[in-house]
Amino acid sequence: MSTIQTSLSEIADALRPAQRIAIAAHVRPDGDALGSVMGLALSLRAMGKTVYALLEDGVPLNLAFLPETVTILTPPYADFEVDVALALDTATHERVGEHTKAALARAPLLIDIDHHPTNPGYGHLNHVDGTQPAVGQIIYELLKAGGFPITDAVMQHLYTAISTDTGSFQYSSTNARTHHIAGEMLAAGLDSSRLAQLLYQTYPARRLQLLRAMLNEMDFRAEGRIASWQFTRALMDEVQVQPGDTEGMIDTLRMIDSVVTAVIFEEMADGKIRVSARSKDQRLDVSAVCGQFGGGGHRLASGARMKGPIQEAAETFLTALEHEVRRLA
Amino acid sequence: MSTIQTSLSEIADALRPAQRIAIAAHVRPDGDALGSVMGLALSLRAMGKTVYALLEDGVPLNLAFLPETVTILTPPYADFEVDVALALDTATHERVGEHTKAALARAPLLIDIDHHPTNPGYGHLNHVDGTQPAVGQIIYELLKAGGFPITDAVMQHLYTAISTDTGSFQYSSTNARTHHIAGEMLAAGLDSSRLAQLLYQTYPARRLQLLRAMLNEMDFRAEGRIASWQFTRALMDEVQVQPGDTEGMIDTLRMIDSVVTAVIFEEMADGKIRVSARSKDQRLDVSAVCGQFGGGGHRLASGARMKGPIQEAAETFLTALEHEVRRLA
Ligand SMILES: [Mn+2]
Ligand SMILES: [Mn+2]
Repeated sequence: MSTIQTSLSEIADALRPAQRIAIAAHVRPDGDALGSVMGLALSLRAMGKTVYALLEDGVPLNLAFLPETVTILTPPYADFEVDVALALDTATHERVGEHTKAALARAPLLIDIDHHPTNPGYGHLNHVDGTQPAVGQIIYELLKAGGFPITDAVMQHLYTAISTDTGSFQYSSTNARTHHIAGEMLAAGLDSSRLAQLLYQTYPARRLQLLRAMLNEMDFRAEGRIASWQFTRALMDEVQVQPGDTEGMIDTLRMIDSVVTAVIFEEMADGKIRVSARSKDQRLDVSAVCGQFGGGGHRLASGARMKGPIQEAAETFLTALEHEVRRLA
Repeated sequence: MSTIQTSLSEIADALRPAQRIAIAAHVRPDGDALGSVMGLALSLRAMGKTVYALLEDGVPLNLAFLPETVTILTPPYADFEVDVALALDTATHERVGEHTKAALARAPLLIDIDHHPTNPGYGHLNHVDGTQPAVGQIIYELLKAGGFPITDAVMQHLYTAISTDTGSFQYSSTNARTHHIAGEMLAAGLDSSRLAQLLYQTYPARRLQLLRAMLNEMDFRAEGRIASWQFTRALMDEVQVQPGDTEGMIDTLRMIDSVVTAVIFEEMADGKIRVSARSKDQRLDVSAVCGQFGGGGHRLASGARMKGPIQEAAETFLTALEHEVRRLA
């Protein structure tokens, strides 16, 4: 393992001779995870390589419309052999999932490409750039650096990665290059408005049921500066929640004008509580609060896992968060 | 009047010698109207010119945060004299409003810059480009063509114009140049995420109260293909609704995957019921259904006014709509 930063052209050089490549991303994949994996996979396949795209938790329903997602593998994995493995958008090696981690270990070379600044560099080669809004943007630069093919299907995945991880170019992580890349894709013929419609303007009735529950049950503290919601297994069962249904719900809490920080507590199958926290104020570092409970992430977007029951986890976390919020002003 | 297309560098040449300039846009201004007027106005003011920014209906609350909006004039206008007048983002001359049209008539030269393809070219000079997603994008190109100053305040207005008229770069009107311009603005130091936060990611708690009420009370018919909601005066009073609070709520109903048509019934102060109807299916013409009740509009977006009480109006309208929906399949 080495934490020396490897350039994208060096990574391209390492990929060029490889014939069999495995690519994975984090559990519970979002648009950036899936889009980065498939964007890179489809470019390498267009070069004639055999590419295994691995997602421990499979394809979220809302992203299944993207090209070739049927080729994504889920555990149990067959006994394939690979020359190189890549983990994308995954802050710690464990976050690829247990089976996927074992599958990646079959490769003599592991490449870690990420934009989570807390990523320790767990690969043999590491490219961790916390200034990039999406790993999809890094993958685009990698394809450019290597002269690798950028087909329409590749663009669909990378545009999805970039658009979803920037909230449609709205988050502060968006940089000039983000727009220039989107502009290059449109100039190359990408139908970005079709993607936007499929990503943002269509949702199942289940999602409205969840939104309704959240609006009915949300809790405010610290004069409305903290908004939170406890997403229980009882509700998950009631609405028969599917992966992707909760995407962006925390933003609805965050958007309320009085709110500085929004938190969702989610009861997982193993009884643990997944905490997702967002901040709207650079002075309020939610990754520090998540760090108190063994979690981490970005300053304005972080997570942690806590012991249940959910009410106790919420109370403990919100008390710590309120302490930080009250220090602001 | 001439409908010969004047190039942006010719328009820049016409503006350069002018010392006193009036700039207006359409009544009920949106982000593109206000942002285009003020983006151009602030650039010309930075060149030392006297610029009158005219909006018949004044500044919408949600855009008042933008730079120098306090300098926008509303009727009655003082008796200023101008060398050149411009109408921006305004498809017909009348749409600037009555007082504003009279004020623009004081100039010996009227310049019409627009992106509505139906614009007949009512100026002495006209630049109408229906391929552009926002007049703000045309104004940016005008400033570039003329070498006019593009300050941070100018960028704030033009970014707002472009972003709001493209639905944050999601509509099909978005082109490669749209992204390249946004990229240039970010490279020049524009804080676009602050603007996005103020434009899209901030809403009053009132708005969530309305959304919660809608999600709790919405009604489905025809196997979920019709979604509707009755927005009563009792609720309006309870949440103390303000103009703009209900913006886009019908889209939330429309986005549900099963839904083909969405309708909101709104109880008005005079006891009449305002009906807003949307269709997602070209075969379902909601303007025909609205026409049965004296209303009309477009095939996919229409309205009508009906006699109260609201429950009876809804029942009558939905029965007629369901009849049409059941003919589809
Ligand atoms: Mn990411
Ligand atoms: Mn416009």
